[in-house]
Amino acid sequence: MQPFILEKIKKIVGSEHYYDSPEDRISYSYDGTPMLQQLPEAVVFPQNNEQISELLHLANKEKFSIIPRGAGTGLSGGSIPVENSIVVVMTKWNKIIEIDIANLTALVEPGMVTGVLQKEVEKLGLFYPPDPGSMNVCTIGGNVAENAGGLRGLKYGVTKNYVLGVEMILPTGEFLKIGGKSVKDVAGYNLKDIVIGSEGTLGIFTKILLKLIPLPTRSKTITVNFKKIIDSGKSVADIISSRITPSMVEFLDNTTMNCVEDYTKIGLDRNSEAMLLIEVDGRVSSVDEDAETIVSILKKNNAAQIRIAEDPTEALLLKTARRSAFSALARRKPTTILEDATVPRSELPVMIEKVREAASNFNVAIGNFGHAGDGNLHPTCLTDERDSVEITRAHKAFGFIFNEAIKLGGTITGEHGTGLAKKDFLESAVGKEGIEFMKKIKMVVDPNNVLNPGKILTIAPRCEGTLPTKREQIPDFHSHH
Amino acid sequence: MQPFILEKIKKIVGSEHYYDSPEDRISYSYDGTPMLQQLPEAVVFPQNNEQISELLHLANKEKFSIIPRGAGTGLSGGSIPVENSIVVVMTKWNKIIEIDIANLTALVEPGMVTGVLQKEVEKLGLFYPPDPGSMNVCTIGGNVAENAGGLRGLKYGVTKNYVLGVEMILPTGEFLKIGGKSVKDVAGYNLKDIVIGSEGTLGIFTKILLKLIPLPTRSKTITVNFKKIIDSGKSVADIISSRITPSMVEFLDNTTMNCVEDYTKIGLDRNSEAMLLIEVDGRVSSVDEDAETIVSILKKNNAAQIRIAEDPTEALLLKTARRSAFSALARRKPTTILEDATVPRSELPVMIEKVREAASNFNVAIGNFGHAGDGNLHPTCLTDERDSVEITRAHKAFGFIFNEAIKLGGTITGEHGTGLAKKDFLESAVGKEGIEFMKKIKMVVDPNNVLNPGKILTIAPRCEGTLPTKREQIPDFHSHH
Repeated sequence: MQPFILEKIKKIVGSEHYYDSPEDRISYSYDGTPMLQQLPEAVVFPQNNEQISELLHLANKEKFSIIPRGAGTGLSGGSIPVENSIVVVMTKWNKIIEIDIANLTALVEPGMVTGVLQKEVEKLGLFYPPDPGSMNVCTIGGNVAENAGGLRGLKYGVTKNYVLGVEMILPTGEFLKIGGKSVKDVAGYNLKDIVIGSEGTLGIFTKILLKLIPLPTRSKTITVNFKKIIDSGKSVADIISSRITPSMVEFLDNTTMNCVEDYTKIGLDRNSEAMLLIEVDGRVSSVDEDAETIVSILKKNNAAQIRIAEDPTEALLLKTARRSAFSALARRKPTTILEDATVPRSELPVMIEKVREAASNFNVAIGNFGHAGDGNLHPTCLTDERDSVEITRAHKAFGFIFNEAIKLGGTITGEHGTGLAKKDFLESAVGKEGIEFMKKIKMVVDPNNVLNPGKILTIAPRCEGTLPTKREQIPDFHSHH
Repeated sequence: MQPFILEKIKKIVGSEHYYDSPEDRISYSYDGTPMLQQLPEAVVFPQNNEQISELLHLANKEKFSIIPRGAGTGLSGGSIPVENSIVVVMTKWNKIIEIDIANLTALVEPGMVTGVLQKEVEKLGLFYPPDPGSMNVCTIGGNVAENAGGLRGLKYGVTKNYVLGVEMILPTGEFLKIGGKSVKDVAGYNLKDIVIGSEGTLGIFTKILLKLIPLPTRSKTITVNFKKIIDSGKSVADIISSRITPSMVEFLDNTTMNCVEDYTKIGLDRNSEAMLLIEVDGRVSSVDEDAETIVSILKKNNAAQIRIAEDPTEALLLKTARRSAFSALARRKPTTILEDATVPRSELPVMIEKVREAASNFNVAIGNFGHAGDGNLHPTCLTDERDSVEITRAHKAFGFIFNEAIKLGGTITGEHGTGLAKKDFLESAVGKEGIEFMKKIKMVVDPNNVLNPGKILTIAPRCEGTLPTKREQIPDFHSHH
């Protein structure tokens, strides 16, 4: 990037909010996704809407790219810089602006940490359910950009079910406010739900209005082990068809369980093929009733060991163990590729089997865990990116897994997004016409393709005669982080 | 329209599915919205996807408009023809294709009648909650196009909360399949939620995949009258802040109550200022507990008369009375203008007062009822469209009501859509930038503006030199229906 452009950028945000040393640029060159890295030209922390707008105006004029970023915990490469780009970091926008008790809403800044918000609203007897694995560090803005899920999705849904409105700066620099405190609103097209999950490609959020719900008064946490993995899948199907809606039905295979046990030492059974962690919540009466029904279903399906948490402390311990699955797996090998193939609930046992087939056919180590109640699995390859032969096999294994998920009526991503990591598989999930529709939206909202270009979609050059832009190439040099 | 084009249209669908007699054209010249009418050139009932696609290709080539239509019960003019248009009626696409018990989904054709689907799934112990007022005649396709709400929205949400996927023909004739049975899916932009509520302007649905839920095992229905309208509003606020989520909290003012009593003779109190109809559902234990809490809240708020339905028959009678509100009001005067201003829940008492102010300031008769728990009111003007002076006052009254709703943080439409009827108010609800974003989407998906043009948005002529199209003008001749 030409120095005069960097000077202009520095002038917009102020020199104390502008960073371009090699250390700073390296720190923002990657996110939670393995094997993707690109140095930005600079990193800036804008102070207000006007600065964001000016940065976008300048990007459109001088044809550089802007990469919005929260905590950088994303798992599909949504906040990886591209060539000739600057990173716009929103983590300092981390305040709760208002909690409205009468309407059960929270207005927050996009850099608000999800877990911090949750603790604050719980003090008031309220509940913000979406709980991505990274909830103690990730931001609401990133959650909205990726439409993040979590363990409680089965009963409570995902981030988009809790977004009532957003304020944002469009790629062309204009301010747009969408939605509000009315719980119903059908005025014009539903712009809110197109920007949710758009992975920072359609705008930079500046405020987010969230829906809260009453905090459940009681919950019960159950863990259960199975000698045979198939019985865990059958149990999930039986629980769902018994018309109970647990708040969590989490699955861990033997590999994941052993890694978690190495890490947490809470006494998981190292020899069983699978484990489920189940939570029911709600009213006192219904929770006890549901827990009993679930235990009888588990017994019928050859449960080897059923453990019901005695108190909230034990329940938290069990859930924390499950939440540590990714970190626990990541300790085993230098590179952890975490995926999130998703299938209709009824196909879960088949999909679990297909993941085992993938590991064995392509000779790679794959731990498997995930949100079984949603049909959302996280097959996780434990590998080493320096071993390019094994990495090639790993990619083939994931290709196989995505293909099988789609054949079963599923999708390539349940909650992590497409980003860079899954672009090549998007057409198989949404079809050529789906891609075309998406491209049309991106091209008309961001005509110069300046905002997070190359994520989700590859936009072809507009007219012949223009050189293809290099900005969207994924760099092929790898780094360890 | 030139005869050779009509001949081509007839050839596409077959002469037995093509109608162009004056009687046929008049029958499809209006919908549930008062004072809007326009004759189409022809009315067709396509038999398959290919015919729909061919019709759209022809429309793009010959520059006529296509108006998709379900049962025509819409209240914002979403299915009113425009000049030089044909109506494509989908009511014969009315089959359930599959009910998947394991995944709790129903795949239906768009002409499926909502109430018929509900009865079918209830036989299996399942539940499709969205219940617009017209549920016994309206179609799922129309519900999805308008993102229809209903009485159960407070607890169960609206149509979009139950759509897992759609198959559709795009304005340019291509087939697009969106979504599937996976409950979580973040592959690419969320196209599903942009086509839901797009009022037939972005595509014609050919199949719709719906989410079902378990049927609640018990419900309790309560009606309550208040001497003072303000106490009804306070009761609603207190119920919501008590953290109970009833399945219905419906409001009827004195005018509506009297019209309903004239019509149904079920013994409503003609002298009280307001009435609430409240339903709680769920498990046996929680339903009884919630009903008791609600009764004590009502008593504290000076309830004049509380009636708890003794049995399902009585409960159905009370709910049917509420559902008849629109028809009951419509008997009073030749023209009924039903609106749906929506405000944050906490502002409901203020908004009820503003509706009374509107009626008195502009000297028009306005009955008021609606989904109080959602802040979604249906102020309904009882008038006569032949009295143009009174109609002018009525429009001013609604202008005042929409303005006040927006000032309170609300919106111009909670569940009826923008259509033709509320286009003039859209900018006040979503802003200039919101309109621009919506126009960009419409123009890029439907470049020749052939599919339901002029609904929601007025697309300006593309380039200078092209004559402004007349197709989007709302005809100003009125008819009685």
